Amino acid sequence: MITLDEVRARDAADPLRHHRDAFALPVDTTYLDGNSLGALPKAAVAVMHDAVTRQWGERLIRSWNEADWIGAPQRIGDKIAAIIGASDGEVIVADSTSVNIFKLLSALTAQRPGATHILSESGNFPTDVHVAAGAARAAGIDLRLVDRDEIAEAIADDTAVLLLTHVHYKSGARYDMASLTAAARAKGVPVIWDLSHSAGAVPLDLAAAGAEYAIGCGYKYLNGGPGAPAFVYVARDHQAALRPALQGWMGDARPFAFEDGYEPAPGMGRMLIGTASVLSLLALECGVDAMLAADGAALWTKSQALFDLLTGLMAERCPEFTLVTPTEADSRGSHASFAHADAWPINRALIDAQVIGDFRAPDILRLGLTPLYTSFEDVWRAVDVLADIMANGTWRKAEYAERAAVT
Amino acid sequence: MITLDEVRARDAADPLRHHRDAFALPVDTTYLDGNSLGALPKAAVAVMHDAVTRQWGERLIRSWNEADWIGAPQRIGDKIAAIIGASDGEVIVADSTSVNIFKLLSALTAQRPGATHILSESGNFPTDVHVAAGAARAAGIDLRLVDRDEIAEAIADDTAVLLLTHVHYKSGARYDMASLTAAARAKGVPVIWDLSHSAGAVPLDLAAAGAEYAIGCGYKYLNGGPGAPAFVYVARDHQAALRPALQGWMGDARPFAFEDGYEPAPGMGRMLIGTASVLSLLALECGVDAMLAADGAALWTKSQALFDLLTGLMAERCPEFTLVTPTEADSRGSHASFAHADAWPINRALIDAQVIGDFRAPDILRLGLTPLYTSFEDVWRAVDVLADIMANGTWRKAEYAERAAVT
Repeated sequence: MITLDEVRARDAADPLRHHRDAFALPVDTTYLDGNSLGALPKAAVAVMHDAVTRQWGERLIRSWNEADWIGAPQRIGDKIAAIIGASDGEVIVADSTSVNIFKLLSALTAQRPGATHILSESGNFPTDVHVAAGAARAAGIDLRLVDRDEIAEAIADDTAVLLLTHVHYKSGARYDMASLTAAARAKGVPVIWDLSHSAGAVPLDLAAAGAEYAIGCGYKYLNGGPGAPAFVYVARDHQAALRPALQGWMGDARPFAFEDGYEPAPGMGRMLIGTASVLSLLALECGVDAMLAADGAALWTKSQALFDLLTGLMAERCPEFTLVTPTEADSRGSHASFAHADAWPINRALIDAQVIGDFRAPDILRLGLTPLYTSFEDVWRAVDVLADIMANGTWRKAEYAERAAVT
Repeated sequence: MITLDEVRARDAADPLRHHRDAFALPVDTTYLDGNSLGALPKAAVAVMHDAVTRQWGERLIRSWNEADWIGAPQRIGDKIAAIIGASDGEVIVADSTSVNIFKLLSALTAQRPGATHILSESGNFPTDVHVAAGAARAAGIDLRLVDRDEIAEAIADDTAVLLLTHVHYKSGARYDMASLTAAARAKGVPVIWDLSHSAGAVPLDLAAAGAEYAIGCGYKYLNGGPGAPAFVYVARDHQAALRPALQGWMGDARPFAFEDGYEPAPGMGRMLIGTASVLSLLALECGVDAMLAADGAALWTKSQALFDLLTGLMAERCPEFTLVTPTEADSRGSHASFAHADAWPINRALIDAQVIGDFRAPDILRLGLTPLYTSFEDVWRAVDVLADIMANGTWRKAEYAERAAVT
């Protein structure tokens, strides 16, 4: 069994160890939930103070130009593009993941008038399925949900769009982006990739994978803060044809001409709708900058090492949990999920012991590995505390059976 | 002519004068643009620092429950309800004004399958018109734009929805909400009121006016910060029937059950889509709290006094400007707009002289009166500086002809 001293030696030898110093992690907490809400980049404290007191408070409306608030969606989008293997001008930051899915679905269903359904995975993240159901209803077509392993064969000529989440939020299973995109394209079907659990988590090269459309989350691995704005990607060649049903003045070619007629801005600008949420955008930029400061390949190497350590320790010390995440690196994201019938109260007991993971209904304990700031010692401690909770039955306390508003 | 001493005496006697102390206004600036970006409530500095460092940084994901992030959209919505004459549970904060217009338009057009068009005003704020054009296209119907004075007679049995901005962003002209709502309802046509230049600016009693649907902006008179989230109002009796095409997991009745099927949350909860933009929400709450601390009737009384002072001084000292805002108080909002062929360079010269108003294409100088923090001296100084600029021709400098990204 690996010892605490041994994991500390691994941390000391970790080439990414200094990146942890860029985050304000609470000293008494083992945080394995960066895939739900990323940690606070220390730089964000001063950035947000400046944004509030100087940019908003002192410079007021002048900051739209002076502080380039107006350019933030494009500027941060370009930075995210560098993380996901896209080019400048192919990514823009706006709205929420959900709203961005709707933009793409409404535009793509309108391009395919003969199609009968939007295709997605049964058990996909709920918002993807809910947005797709609403977009399908609006387009007068169906939403077809099939099991994960039936997706490839379900793609049909009359599929309007295929909407898939690259890394599954619960199991952590990862689709082969290149082969599924090619399979769909062979039938003329565009694919929207939800990168919420991929961006900043696994190696991504959208260009090489032939990905045409994608959206993703700002507040998970990108560490953008609670409810950070999301991003949307459209390969350059497809941008000019895109006309989302959801369109607004910030996506107009000349918003400050104040004219009745809408002319979509060239490129990704048309994916902007209302006024950008500036404070949240500036926090997101700090998280993205912190990610850009690290080497992507090194991050993925460390993610695999953290995963191997976690699953190894769990098998040794908490054998009552069943790993549901694929063990092959190319087939998963950067979290590990374990099934246990009492995952809810166990996770509550873990939180009380300052080990923060996630419960995902009905029976999953989900532990996020965020190599920018997760240490080997974090993983060791989490399993050590969990083993203790299981051995002592701490999780059986009546209070842990109660459900909170957010789980 | 009223003197500086006289306006200072009016400020000293102003029952609202201490509310100005709640805002961090730069001392060297005369700010008459609170209708574009409201000033910083001083309380927001500490609130945002706590939100970033403690809630996000230390408590991390736990803050969704501990700090009631999850309840913020409803909590702040209830506070805004008190400002606009709605009841608890009738207002929720989410997304942008534009996205909220789309939610309502998509739901209401779906309820009226025989209708042929969305009706709005030619020259309405561009995002309203652009969103309506997109929603109409998605619904397979037309967008019909008519002049302001032709709206009432244009309402027809086959009008799907009437979308109006209560106070016009440019002219400041205000519609009679009660009579137009009644006229539309007599033909079975629902009305969406855009309250962006009304909420916190003029007396609003949505219940008394019979208003059924409304949306509004958080970053103008509500002082919620740059790009603050917007709000949406639906009268209680109409909530259950509303099914926007844009739907997402936070609007589901049980978001943390993680199920494929979408069941709209009871009441306004269904108007939530993705994860709320927490940092921006908490800044907005500070602005709303600052507004709630003041008496609404006193604010409107002061707004009228500021307007009378401004228009009186402009007529005396800057007669080359033409007032385009209605002078009757019930027919306008809380800003005054003046036409001048050279409004663009004149406004640039004003900004250089630390007097901040707005230019609105093609020829409007717009001065916002925000009685929470605008003083009579502010108004006097603005006109004094403007008169000087006009007398000296300062605005003719070549640099003032150049256009900026945001005007």
